Amino acid sequence: MMNSIIKKTILFLIIIVLNTSLFSQTTDSIVIKKIYSAALTNDIAYNNLEYLCKKIGARIAGSPQAAAAVEWAKQLLQNMDIDNVYTEELWVHRWDRGEKEYCKLVSPLFGTQELTICALGESIGTGPTGINAEIIEVKNFDDLKKLGKKKIKGKIIFFNRPMDATLFNTFEAYGGAVDQRFSGASEAAKYGAIGVIVRSLTTNIDEFPHTGIMRYTEGTPKIPAVAVCTKDAELLSQWLQSDPKLKVYIKTNCQFYPEVKSCNVIGEIKGSKYPDEFIMVGGHIDSWDLGEGAQDDGVGCMQSIEVLRLFKSLGIKPKHSIRVVIFMDEEIAQRGGQKHKDLVELKNEKIIAAIESDGGGFIPTGFSIDASEEKILKLKEWIKLFENYGMHQVDVGWGGVDIDPLKEVNIPLIGLETSSQRYFDYQHSAKDTFDKVNKREMQLGSAAMAALIYLIDQYGL
Amino acid sequence: MMNSIIKKTILFLIIIVLNTSLFSQTTDSIVIKKIYSAALTNDIAYNNLEYLCKKIGARIAGSPQAAAAVEWAKQLLQNMDIDNVYTEELWVHRWDRGEKEYCKLVSPLFGTQELTICALGESIGTGPTGINAEIIEVKNFDDLKKLGKKKIKGKIIFFNRPMDATLFNTFEAYGGAVDQRFSGASEAAKYGAIGVIVRSLTTNIDEFPHTGIMRYTEGTPKIPAVAVCTKDAELLSQWLQSDPKLKVYIKTNCQFYPEVKSCNVIGEIKGSKYPDEFIMVGGHIDSWDLGEGAQDDGVGCMQSIEVLRLFKSLGIKPKHSIRVVIFMDEEIAQRGGQKHKDLVELKNEKIIAAIESDGGGFIPTGFSIDASEEKILKLKEWIKLFENYGMHQVDVGWGGVDIDPLKEVNIPLIGLETSSQRYFDYQHSAKDTFDKVNKREMQLGSAAMAALIYLIDQYGL
Repeated sequence: MMNSIIKKTILFLIIIVLNTSLFSQTTDSIVIKKIYSAALTNDIAYNNLEYLCKKIGARIAGSPQAAAAVEWAKQLLQNMDIDNVYTEELWVHRWDRGEKEYCKLVSPLFGTQELTICALGESIGTGPTGINAEIIEVKNFDDLKKLGKKKIKGKIIFFNRPMDATLFNTFEAYGGAVDQRFSGASEAAKYGAIGVIVRSLTTNIDEFPHTGIMRYTEGTPKIPAVAVCTKDAELLSQWLQSDPKLKVYIKTNCQFYPEVKSCNVIGEIKGSKYPDEFIMVGGHIDSWDLGEGAQDDGVGCMQSIEVLRLFKSLGIKPKHSIRVVIFMDEEIAQRGGQKHKDLVELKNEKIIAAIESDGGGFIPTGFSIDASEEKILKLKEWIKLFENYGMHQVDVGWGGVDIDPLKEVNIPLIGLETSSQRYFDYQHSAKDTFDKVNKREMQLGSAAMAALIYLIDQYGL
Repeated sequence: MMNSIIKKTILFLIIIVLNTSLFSQTTDSIVIKKIYSAALTNDIAYNNLEYLCKKIGARIAGSPQAAAAVEWAKQLLQNMDIDNVYTEELWVHRWDRGEKEYCKLVSPLFGTQELTICALGESIGTGPTGINAEIIEVKNFDDLKKLGKKKIKGKIIFFNRPMDATLFNTFEAYGGAVDQRFSGASEAAKYGAIGVIVRSLTTNIDEFPHTGIMRYTEGTPKIPAVAVCTKDAELLSQWLQSDPKLKVYIKTNCQFYPEVKSCNVIGEIKGSKYPDEFIMVGGHIDSWDLGEGAQDDGVGCMQSIEVLRLFKSLGIKPKHSIRVVIFMDEEIAQRGGQKHKDLVELKNEKIIAAIESDGGGFIPTGFSIDASEEKILKLKEWIKLFENYGMHQVDVGWGGVDIDPLKEVNIPLIGLETSSQRYFDYQHSAKDTFDKVNKREMQLGSAAMAALIYLIDQYGL
């Protein structure tokens, strides 16, 4: 698109100015505008994200890279001239993928075909000889029941229910399919399956397998679980239709090691009037071991630290203390969130609100909130101040995984909501890299959280 | 982000379902949901865009590639089993960049440095010997006035006013800077400048020069005009501060050729009740000669054709005829838009509404409208049906470049509005390639236009 004729450009400008001037110029909206301007004209957070992604990279909890990320985040905060930087120690699992996985279809009809897979997080490995068996495709756990032990015993179950691409909110689509990944292995094992292959959780058809956490149910045998890229899921399904006797060989090399010490990293600005009352904002620094943990959730960490930078650089002195928490271990066992809650409880700290960014650095669309009706109404009133920045939504009933334990101690939870359209292109896969993050989109998220914290600081929640 | 604990996933699902159920299930909303579902689960438009970008590529008006694109679009429509496919012939300019441009700084202080530039669209070339002169940096046309003829004569003017990154809507930022590109050359020539270098219109600092149309004012000497990538604009500005005697050598090889015949391509579905009344939707098939014309505006063309496919595949038989116009020559002289309007006028056709998509295949945020107050109010009422798909905005006073001439004959104009955050990363540069288009974001735009056309067809505008 061009504005080739200056007349049109001027017209266009007038239109925008007219539309914009309807926005009341209250003090709050002026401060918020300053916050957005400062965020949109600064590269520090974006450059830091690049460092985290490119110089440290993937950082699954317990890995040396996770330790590096924690050390780097601590130094970043220490170099910011803020009032307090410290860590909260915790133990994390240590699961490692080991050597790259291997998977091969053998069909008397079609020949052989390698499939692109990855082990699911915290799955057991197949052992050095791998597993080899016929495959049964199912869509859900009911299908397992219908098939029964007789048919399933000794087989490998292929969960192939796609995310529902018709849903506007892709998290809803994810929610409708993630049970296969999360508990598919144990559900299949109940009927005697010896392994599971799960269709990757993305609406794209591509060559990238998406990992993610899975859990074994106590009392059922542990069997290996892998994700297959959607392109190969389609192929596998097609082959199975003509050749139900098709066999698959899977070898994964993941294993557990002893738990490792790690920590949350915390940075604080002291409040001028209520130094013992905190507004908290955070993201998680651990990521999956594929990709670079850019959208999930390097962005959230960098946005949270950026909130402090924005307050400092604009000379906004908050009445309440502002606390950034860089959480560890969101992806695996959520120990960071639990630890922080335990310490808040132990120290009997007053947290006015806990805000989390873990939906990726996409265009912010609004906030989600898990709090009392009164607080929800307040946020719904405030959202009007964000409409000129494209945010219209207040969704009720959720904050974020890391802050969720704080609900137990009655702390209001708020999540930054962003456009979900591109999120599952990348999540938990090798595609979650720095180049997928747009600087402006990410910084709009930083600004939105800083502006919200400014309002909470001014008026309480 | 993960939903590691199934409890949370279920909670999350419930929240979404609750929020969604507030949306009244009218017939319209059911049809609209069907349209979105069909758009989000089909790859045809996206695959066609890939073909256009990768097999035809850049297609500046008058080029062989533009002719190929026109032929391809016609065949695409002919193969769709619709009622009418035809073309509207027109003549277009034929400007060609020629061999790659060359630009070198020579500083007694810093040495020499090559700059990455591109000629602006419809600039004259420098001739085979190039131009070589001292540089004066200015921010705007007032600066030229202040400097005056004496200082400017024989120099090269460097327009270096950046787009204002603090503005949420990047089109507003573009509108505030595009005068330098559009008329900078003639403004500088009035004072005796022999050439202009214009900072590329993007908020990024990178190595990609962005071209775009420029115009010479009648009665002023024509001088060569180029865009410099923002990274080199910054460097040039820095060098100039220490070394105002710095010289630049520029060689561009662009030239004009005789005008060429080209055409708009039109496809129509006949209305069941009012076959002589049209709802029009379109985009432009010509692009700049750098990149692949993906976001600008291959997307708009593919979305418009997708509207027909959606109506056909869902069995929605419109009462009014639906016309897709694949416009030629939006970027250079807007002859396609003019020609279509001339023919509408000549044939005395009734067009109920003309809709254009030329803001890129990003997340739709709303519609702009240039029509009577009554029609604006209708659209503002309808926008509620789009809120569940992230669209909240109705901006008044603009439709689109290609449809703009139709205003003269009192046709209501509507533009699809999309998130502008990433648009100027790509516009008119080598970065405007297929991989920058997200399928879901693009298809949400197709669905939004199809849904709007459905409403206009049902209720009139």
